[in-house]
Amino acid sequence: MYIEKVNSPADIKELGIHQLNVLAAEIREDLMNRLSKRGGHFGPNFGIVEATIALHYVFDSPKDNLVFDVSHQCYTHKILTGRREAFCSDEHFGDVSGYTNPEESEHDFFNVGHTSTSVSLACGLAKARDVKGEDGNVIAVIGDGSLSGGEALEGIDYASELGSNFIIVVNDNDMSIAENHGGLYKNLRELRESGGKCACNLFRAFGLDYIYVPDGNDIGELIEAFRSVKDTPRPTVVHICTVKGKGYVPAETKKEDWHWHMPFDPATGESPSSGDYEDYGSLTCDFLMNKMKADKSVVTITAAVPVNIGFTPEKRKEAGAQFIDVGIAEEHAVAMVSGIARNGGKPVFATHSSFFQRTYDQISQDLCINRSPATLLVNTASVYGMHDITHLGIFDIPMMSNIPELVYLAPTCCEEYFAMLDWSIEQDRYPVAIRIPCNGVVHTDTAVDTDYSDINRYKVTKKGSGTAILALGDFYQTGEALAALITEKTGTAPTLVNPRYITGIDEALLEELKKEHSTVVTIEDGILDGGFGEKIARFYGSSDMKVYNYGLKKEFIDRYAVEDVLRANRLTPEQILSDITA
Amino acid sequence: MYIEKVNSPADIKELGIHQLNVLAAEIREDLMNRLSKRGGHFGPNFGIVEATIALHYVFDSPKDNLVFDVSHQCYTHKILTGRREAFCSDEHFGDVSGYTNPEESEHDFFNVGHTSTSVSLACGLAKARDVKGEDGNVIAVIGDGSLSGGEALEGIDYASELGSNFIIVVNDNDMSIAENHGGLYKNLRELRESGGKCACNLFRAFGLDYIYVPDGNDIGELIEAFRSVKDTPRPTVVHICTVKGKGYVPAETKKEDWHWHMPFDPATGESPSSGDYEDYGSLTCDFLMNKMKADKSVVTITAAVPVNIGFTPEKRKEAGAQFIDVGIAEEHAVAMVSGIARNGGKPVFATHSSFFQRTYDQISQDLCINRSPATLLVNTASVYGMHDITHLGIFDIPMMSNIPELVYLAPTCCEEYFAMLDWSIEQDRYPVAIRIPCNGVVHTDTAVDTDYSDINRYKVTKKGSGTAILALGDFYQTGEALAALITEKTGTAPTLVNPRYITGIDEALLEELKKEHSTVVTIEDGILDGGFGEKIARFYGSSDMKVYNYGLKKEFIDRYAVEDVLRANRLTPEQILSDITA
Repeated sequence: MYIEKVNSPADIKELGIHQLNVLAAEIREDLMNRLSKRGGHFGPNFGIVEATIALHYVFDSPKDNLVFDVSHQCYTHKILTGRREAFCSDEHFGDVSGYTNPEESEHDFFNVGHTSTSVSLACGLAKARDVKGEDGNVIAVIGDGSLSGGEALEGIDYASELGSNFIIVVNDNDMSIAENHGGLYKNLRELRESGGKCACNLFRAFGLDYIYVPDGNDIGELIEAFRSVKDTPRPTVVHICTVKGKGYVPAETKKEDWHWHMPFDPATGESPSSGDYEDYGSLTCDFLMNKMKADKSVVTITAAVPVNIGFTPEKRKEAGAQFIDVGIAEEHAVAMVSGIARNGGKPVFATHSSFFQRTYDQISQDLCINRSPATLLVNTASVYGMHDITHLGIFDIPMMSNIPELVYLAPTCCEEYFAMLDWSIEQDRYPVAIRIPCNGVVHTDTAVDTDYSDINRYKVTKKGSGTAILALGDFYQTGEALAALITEKTGTAPTLVNPRYITGIDEALLEELKKEHSTVVTIEDGILDGGFGEKIARFYGSSDMKVYNYGLKKEFIDRYAVEDVLRANRLTPEQILSDITA
Repeated sequence: MYIEKVNSPADIKELGIHQLNVLAAEIREDLMNRLSKRGGHFGPNFGIVEATIALHYVFDSPKDNLVFDVSHQCYTHKILTGRREAFCSDEHFGDVSGYTNPEESEHDFFNVGHTSTSVSLACGLAKARDVKGEDGNVIAVIGDGSLSGGEALEGIDYASELGSNFIIVVNDNDMSIAENHGGLYKNLRELRESGGKCACNLFRAFGLDYIYVPDGNDIGELIEAFRSVKDTPRPTVVHICTVKGKGYVPAETKKEDWHWHMPFDPATGESPSSGDYEDYGSLTCDFLMNKMKADKSVVTITAAVPVNIGFTPEKRKEAGAQFIDVGIAEEHAVAMVSGIARNGGKPVFATHSSFFQRTYDQISQDLCINRSPATLLVNTASVYGMHDITHLGIFDIPMMSNIPELVYLAPTCCEEYFAMLDWSIEQDRYPVAIRIPCNGVVHTDTAVDTDYSDINRYKVTKKGSGTAILALGDFYQTGEALAALITEKTGTAPTLVNPRYITGIDEALLEELKKEHSTVVTIEDGILDGGFGEKIARFYGSSDMKVYNYGLKKEFIDRYAVEDVLRANRLTPEQILSDITA
């Protein structure tokens, strides 16, 4: 096996094309080993094996800098740069993350997980190289799906101003996570169909040089192309056409399902059934499908992650013109929902907490200044959400809840979530965001309110005394457990409050609490800094009320165990009781 | 005069070309009246008079929807839609804002002030029209300068998917605020030079239909072009070439100076001298010029507003390759500075507080997760900053200070500002942001610290007892005045603290304060929600310390008088003293 002798990119430079092809097959075995047992980004990694080999064959990493967009396609790069153990040895899976990571290797320049950033980051590397008078190639590797993101388009537009060596490898597999959306993909198709020769060329229109590689899974073609641009003095695009999931029939056939895949049996492609259980993805989709059928003005919008709220290809087709996937274009999505609402439509835009970070200005300027009555569904906004440092869902409360005019709601259970969503869609006064619960689908027997237009009215769910617990959203159940524990240990039942509104203070209730309570505990599923609890602490700042805020520390955490994080932040009922009775 | 009979767009539809030309001249007189006396966006408004007349002549607003990008070019639109008084009658200047405003007229669809949003907002209007089965034209009017913004490019990319009537008027005057930057402007030049006929066409590459109007200040040409696309069933770009500042020689000649202009004498174009006084723009530029001359790895970056930190065309030229204006591309700028820092450069990116809102995700993902030691200079971050609802500088503290790893500094005077900037440029551990003071250039005789690497160490500037005042950044002087007033009125001198670090808590000092203080007052120049003071309130939440937080209410305010806002938020020393001794 060749792969056993590859500890760094230097080790592949003496191999011939045939040997490199054997190496590619060996790499796919390693990829299959990790991906089938651990899950991960299957399609992107299987598709770019040859291109990664050719890049390391032609260029000299790390002197030549490779920057991978999103970097979910960096597994082959990791294998070729001394990290093979994490793929072939099951006990070493945990040694590496699923993304590039400078802490792992000098061949990785950035911790990257969001799309569309590679060109701008790489422009910075190139600019520093130039002002310092150094040389070397800087190469950004970006998939076609990422091209529609505003940051990527800004970077591509700027790149031609560098006026020095800069290479953008566009890895075109004719897919985003789902299918691509946007006019530029028609141009990519024309380029593929014309062998890169059609006169109207997006990249040339941005002022870049351009070459075309028809088969981006052919190592020989790739080496020739990369050699031809190595040390180019001008910003240049190398457009390579690859097959997403290349080398594994199920992944080549069902590209959307195999973009990211859970563990599976390599022989069949089947994953163990996870059983029949409720999840907010399909529940949300069902709810929105019913709303859209009943009312033609309801429109659901996603940005490249439609399945995360249940919109499978079949559901998307069924929804027709009332469903829009804008592709990777979150800023556009938020501005567009403001426009839809302004013209009397009822738009709902859903994406992950981490991806809403792309839209701060659009939420503020396009949506909230205009008080457009649109609905934002904030998914995986929780310590229970995604666990990679680049996809954390614990920052949305400070980011969004301090924007004026926005009503940000935190439902505590399934029934309350859909009541809030229904109210939000039908009302015409407020921009509303709703945090989809993330702690499993919890049901309640108690009737939930259907009207949330009395803004900032918290709900007392259990009336007690001494201590009042304000337990927000999907940490409400922690509040319930804490209330039970306090009752059990002290003999006095505390008051339990479901605040519901993240964006404001129920001053009347907070005043009222002063009468029979000396302590208020807030619990929220997000970082404390800039969050909900601090608003309560400010309200009571000059009073005698003792306020204890519970939530997460302001920090980037990576590949964590939820239980560890909760314990480190003293978020178990036992820890909280111990603190407040200390 | 024709203009006296124009109360709505219907009133121009019977006029002939000659009469419309006379009307254009009359409109320029009104524009001159307001702009020479009040100041405002001169170049954009003088350039688009004819195009606005032609749009209202051909289309039927408000059934046909006009959405102006940035909307700083909407004066003619306001004149034609019943708001002429605000231009010809000095006493009515205050009746209208400088931007489109739905509260003023049914012809205005959005309150807009940031660039690059029009296409996405208009896509939303069109989508709602389509799902409701209505008709009418939707027209976005966007300048060439705005095209480089990510949100605009996402919108242009998405637009072709609408598959229905949608018109993008690209108002190409070959200028941004300063000169344009980015590769797409080479394509616009090719289009102009080829009469719109060159085969490589950015807009067609995004899947849009395209027509070209050589003279966008010729009403006849414009009417013909707009008629040809009215009711088009396909997303279409109308590329019109206009002269920025058209009709006033000083503005046509010095386009950058006349983008926005203060009041002036129409006969000469001269403004009354504002005297020789210090401002942070030129001081910052001088400081950075010196740093760049001494060290080739220092790079200054702006995004279309170079003069706001003093980089006039002459200074930009002098700085050479060490100065970059990326044009309207804030996301790219922040990611690029991360790359520059990663490769050993020393980058400083400056823009307005309001425009940093575009970069939340880039600050978090590209910069802070990677702990790249770059410097962000946050300009007009203050109640003393820009007073339009779309340009408020009072939200940056909650937006930026709750991002992990960022060190956000609040200098209290000139010497401290430059000491912090110098430290930030030379250190290699932290992403640092600095709030440029906005309350005039205040000097100190006291030596300021030069090393800020002991993160979150507040500075006690006056040691007292009873009350401790934590006065942040350019509200430090308010803290000084409050301290003097407390001493005078109570006989006990309070402690005065310069917190310096917005992003963290000096726990040791806050603990220490408990000994001789019963009250803590925080004062900050920004909204309270999610801000600095709330962190102090949380720290003391379960203690006996009384905490009073002073700052601004979370709300969008528009065209305000600073004194009114300060008083409404009880931010005068007298009001604070009254509160804390109540």
